[in-house]
Amino acid sequence: MPELYDVVAIGNAIVDVIAPCSEDFLANEGLIKGSMALIDEAQAQQLYDRMAPGIEASGGSAANTVAGVASLGGRSAYVGKVAADVLGEVFAHDIGAIGVSFATAPLKGGAATARSLINVTPDGQRTMSTFLGASNALTPADLDAEMIKAASVLYLEGYLFDPEEARKAFAKAATVARDAGRKISLTLSDGFVVDRHRAGLMAFIESDVDILFANETEVKMLMQTDDFDAAAAGLRPHVEIAALTRSEKGSVIISKTGTETVAAAPVDAVVDTTGAGDQYAAGFLFGFARGRSLQDCGRLGSLAAAEVISHYGPRPQTPFKDLAAKAGL
Amino acid sequence: MPELYDVVAIGNAIVDVIAPCSEDFLANEGLIKGSMALIDEAQAQQLYDRMAPGIEASGGSAANTVAGVASLGGRSAYVGKVAADVLGEVFAHDIGAIGVSFATAPLKGGAATARSLINVTPDGQRTMSTFLGASNALTPADLDAEMIKAASVLYLEGYLFDPEEARKAFAKAATVARDAGRKISLTLSDGFVVDRHRAGLMAFIESDVDILFANETEVKMLMQTDDFDAAAAGLRPHVEIAALTRSEKGSVIISKTGTETVAAAPVDAVVDTTGAGDQYAAGFLFGFARGRSLQDCGRLGSLAAAEVISHYGPRPQTPFKDLAAKAGL
Repeated sequence: MPELYDVVAIGNAIVDVIAPCSEDFLANEGLIKGSMALIDEAQAQQLYDRMAPGIEASGGSAANTVAGVASLGGRSAYVGKVAADVLGEVFAHDIGAIGVSFATAPLKGGAATARSLINVTPDGQRTMSTFLGASNALTPADLDAEMIKAASVLYLEGYLFDPEEARKAFAKAATVARDAGRKISLTLSDGFVVDRHRAGLMAFIESDVDILFANETEVKMLMQTDDFDAAAAGLRPHVEIAALTRSEKGSVIISKTGTETVAAAPVDAVVDTTGAGDQYAAGFLFGFARGRSLQDCGRLGSLAAAEVISHYGPRPQTPFKDLAAKAGL
Repeated sequence: MPELYDVVAIGNAIVDVIAPCSEDFLANEGLIKGSMALIDEAQAQQLYDRMAPGIEASGGSAANTVAGVASLGGRSAYVGKVAADVLGEVFAHDIGAIGVSFATAPLKGGAATARSLINVTPDGQRTMSTFLGASNALTPADLDAEMIKAASVLYLEGYLFDPEEARKAFAKAATVARDAGRKISLTLSDGFVVDRHRAGLMAFIESDVDILFANETEVKMLMQTDDFDAAAAGLRPHVEIAALTRSEKGSVIISKTGTETVAAAPVDAVVDTTGAGDQYAAGFLFGFARGRSLQDCGRLGSLAAAEVISHYGPRPQTPFKDLAAKAGL
């Protein structure tokens, strides 16, 4: 079967509402800086009422990643649930307009399209409060097996470990991908996700995951150690490849055969870190699907992450393909 | 009666959808670069389907202006019509969150909240295609006479010369403001607006307007000449003060007593010119309401315009108050 896609991703289909805030605002709202907290619709309304003026932009971690793959010139597809409402139309427009295949039927008569209220402190760090809405209604029936078989890499978003039906969809998608000889990748998404599902995530990683993405906090929580090097060393026997991101310290890629260290790409000014991890994964997976070295995969990831943190919003504003060409990648 | 507000504005309440585009895209879509064209809902859907991924941000010319006044530390209020839908909520949130009083009742059971599809070419120039929707339903009944009486300056958006009921609201608002001894300002908004309503606009300027805002194209169209200096000289007898903006050439402020030339403020890179004229007006009107010299009004306008064209979106991302303090204004 031909590989029509470089990457197919499954994730929470979310529209972001991004606004600046002070450190005090986070404290007053009881928000933990840099985290992603789940909130219900009433809490979302309350928090929104107190937030500064913002912009709305399509988001969703894995959706940001496949948008990044498309921006690099790759072919990608996405599975995620929106509602039949204005924000759902915005989400579908934006992901389609960048060239990603997206055909999941919108939810009708249920919750509204998911939104993530993202408060950005002056240091560019983002704190997310997410109302999952329709995105929570993803089930195994939403999967298109032919689409999964047709992609070099399946990419799964750790956030979807929370709802039971979505976890079932993960298992089904992984089985389809494995049987078709494809690679399976997973991002841990968030420290609290790791905390809630450590055993289940580790079992899934061992049985199904070829490429794991995690930031420093997440890998430490997964391996239950405060020492990054110990966490990386502990993880090595459990997974073929792990790409571990460390913000301005770049990334460390561990594999059975060795360790690659990749520097962060330079940024003039960090405006909003929303999407940094998502776009690192985009660069890495595009490189991986195209048979590049792990060092080049990491460098593509650094390049993509540097672009997205230089402006508000979680998706590329400058085509990654042009940036990669300029950087000789 | 005390002046509770520096500025109260009446305009089209619009949410912007802003996306990058090529010069070819404008040509293929039959769009005239730099203009604002009115489109219906079906045309809006068609154009949106072909646009690149974008961001959504509250807009509307006069609404951007009062948001800018608030960002300078001024007190402002706004009158404009949204629908009772998600984009209407976004509009109300954003204008309220920056501190602008906004209490116009949303339209129920009619058209959706207005949206402007803004395509931005690589030179930062914006081309707008606007579906007016609910904003078109503004009537004299939406005015709050006490609010108008309580503001140093009434600011009117030329775009509202198109719908008849809104034009009636203008006349009523101007009467209330004049009778309360307030100043009345108007922006011409767009060359095509001037073309459609030249005689009506000129009559309104002569009878009611104290401060007129226009860019180079608009003042040339109003005075029917291709020569900027001739247009400015021709306009002088008709209005007390006119602030004429000339993009990177800065602005020229004419009054009965003389002419002030104000340089544009420096910008590292022009990203998106959306809101440039609106924020120039914000700086100018804030200065004017606070009794500053015309030169300082113009400099505040230049400063505000420079901030807004350095990023996507029509409203301030950095508080204008901080920028003004840094510039000694």
